[in-house]
Amino acid sequence: MTEENERILLAHGGGGRLMAELIAKTIAPTIYGDKPQNLTDAASVDIDGKEILFTTDSFVVQPLFFPAGDIGKLAVCGTVNDLAVCGAKPQTLSLALIIEEGFAVAALEKILHSIGTTARQAGVAIVTGDTKVVEKGAADGIFINTTGIGPRRRNTRLGFDCIEPGDVILINGTLGDHGMTIMSKRQELAIQSPLQSDCACLHEIIGLLLDALGPKVKFMRDPTRGGLAATLNEITQSCGCGIEIEEKKIPVDPAVKAAADILGFDILNIANEGKFVAVVAADAEKQALDVLRSHPLGRKAARIGVVGPKQPHSLVELITRIGGRRIIGMPYGRELPRIC
Amino acid sequence: MTEENERILLAHGGGGRLMAELIAKTIAPTIYGDKPQNLTDAASVDIDGKEILFTTDSFVVQPLFFPAGDIGKLAVCGTVNDLAVCGAKPQTLSLALIIEEGFAVAALEKILHSIGTTARQAGVAIVTGDTKVVEKGAADGIFINTTGIGPRRRNTRLGFDCIEPGDVILINGTLGDHGMTIMSKRQELAIQSPLQSDCACLHEIIGLLLDALGPKVKFMRDPTRGGLAATLNEITQSCGCGIEIEEKKIPVDPAVKAAADILGFDILNIANEGKFVAVVAADAEKQALDVLRSHPLGRKAARIGVVGPKQPHSLVELITRIGGRRIIGMPYGRELPRIC
Repeated sequence: MTEENERILLAHGGGGRLMAELIAKTIAPTIYGDKPQNLTDAASVDIDGKEILFTTDSFVVQPLFFPAGDIGKLAVCGTVNDLAVCGAKPQTLSLALIIEEGFAVAALEKILHSIGTTARQAGVAIVTGDTKVVEKGAADGIFINTTGIGPRRRNTRLGFDCIEPGDVILINGTLGDHGMTIMSKRQELAIQSPLQSDCACLHEIIGLLLDALGPKVKFMRDPTRGGLAATLNEITQSCGCGIEIEEKKIPVDPAVKAAADILGFDILNIANEGKFVAVVAADAEKQALDVLRSHPLGRKAARIGVVGPKQPHSLVELITRIGGRRIIGMPYGRELPRIC
Repeated sequence: MTEENERILLAHGGGGRLMAELIAKTIAPTIYGDKPQNLTDAASVDIDGKEILFTTDSFVVQPLFFPAGDIGKLAVCGTVNDLAVCGAKPQTLSLALIIEEGFAVAALEKILHSIGTTARQAGVAIVTGDTKVVEKGAADGIFINTTGIGPRRRNTRLGFDCIEPGDVILINGTLGDHGMTIMSKRQELAIQSPLQSDCACLHEIIGLLLDALGPKVKFMRDPTRGGLAATLNEITQSCGCGIEIEEKKIPVDPAVKAAADILGFDILNIANEGKFVAVVAADAEKQALDVLRSHPLGRKAARIGVVGPKQPHSLVELITRIGGRRIIGMPYGRELPRIC
């Protein structure tokens, strides 16, 4: 039971352990009653015999504008990516704005311009919307919700249950860029920071991978809030297999690494907005990496680990640079509020 | 061009003239560039040859709990109704929460319980969600976005272009209940206010009407923000016909009327959350009213007016109780912030 004075903490929105608990113990049982539901990034919906995927995300990032992106670009890419990693062809978005009274119309136009441009480039249509305004002090500038739908791509079969021991774990590039860009900007890191968000729409590179490998791609997820650590822990918990990753194989930009070290963050917990983890059949590893590296968003693609045997209490383990082993836990969620 | 120091006002979210201008002059052209789009409550989307309707709404109502409803019930009913009035069978919702740090978990549970109960009663499934938490002071308790999809019902043909001179305008019951309940609560009206929100899901009564009348129902809209005045003005502007309504035919609860008089509001501008306007072929009026009155949400259904001839600068005119004529303009939007 909920304690009478229990309160929502920032960490409840951090994409880590506390958020998983809030969803599992409060949100899902209260909404669904005794009919448990499998909540994924994008839900499969049957409309008169036609399967479509459906996903929603609200964006509350602060600051609203950051190197290589803004809340508008993020709002389109985030929902496009949630559809793409679930095997959908992103097609249509809704757009809902909550704006604080007094917000500059020029800033709104800049954000809307970003939304329009990103959507056109991604080939998705924004077809319906909603605008609410709240009093000064009742919101922080602007919050954006995008909800997306698209048909499932043919010849794909993705899911935790497809993952088998021996499958390899790939990433399409460097980790931590988005999160560390936001944190550097927020902390006003004195260094002339060259950091840039990796915020990008991944449907195209994911499309190439699925076209080439079909069902040999077993599972994909974009490691946003909670970072790679949260994504890999969700995989082990859901498929029952352990995961082993190698620190030296994980691509990280040196400037991002430096910023993380200065600010005391673990790159594995940091949000990404232009990355996806793919679990792929071992015999398709080379082909997958070739396909990924052929695309601008996959130049630094790498195999970072492998799926281990099925076992109770399966863990994510990191082989460190010096050959040690470290258990990578589910992050708590407090590290990076309002990163997306 | 936007003035450099132009700011968003509360009235930009009020569902009236200022909001229409913001959408027409800023949001639509910035997002769509030179490809103008017809923005309706629910957009029609073709997914591989299957037509579905798609709609989004954010809810920022204050207070969160009010007589006969709360933000959770409102969030489900609002999106169900937007689908239903566009001729869809509401099927599936997404749910996105933005919660302020420090929000009571018990209040969250109460809201989620409302969401779950209302969705089950309406027969819609909540299949995907998102939870964000922002710092104390960066939001006002909780904001909720619901986005909904559903297939278009067969044997319906709805749209501004279906409306013809001579069609009659029906409403399923009393006007102003939701808005005046919220305002009374907010103003802490000293009277022992018996007001109750009309917040309800309308898909069932709308289904009965469409099953009975088919394409003789020409157009429907739920008069939420901006009230009946905004809805009728949108109709005249979009179909090019004038509208004449009769004050004495408009059902209003006496307590709601009293509260509106005390607080200085015009009932026609007040938001409703369990009402819909239907434009119906004249020869189907009696049948339509019989169907509406057979349902608990339509007991006080009434014919309130008629569509006039096509003319330039068409207007909404009210015939007052004493037989005078008054032009009903599009409300500006300032009257009722955060009503839904």
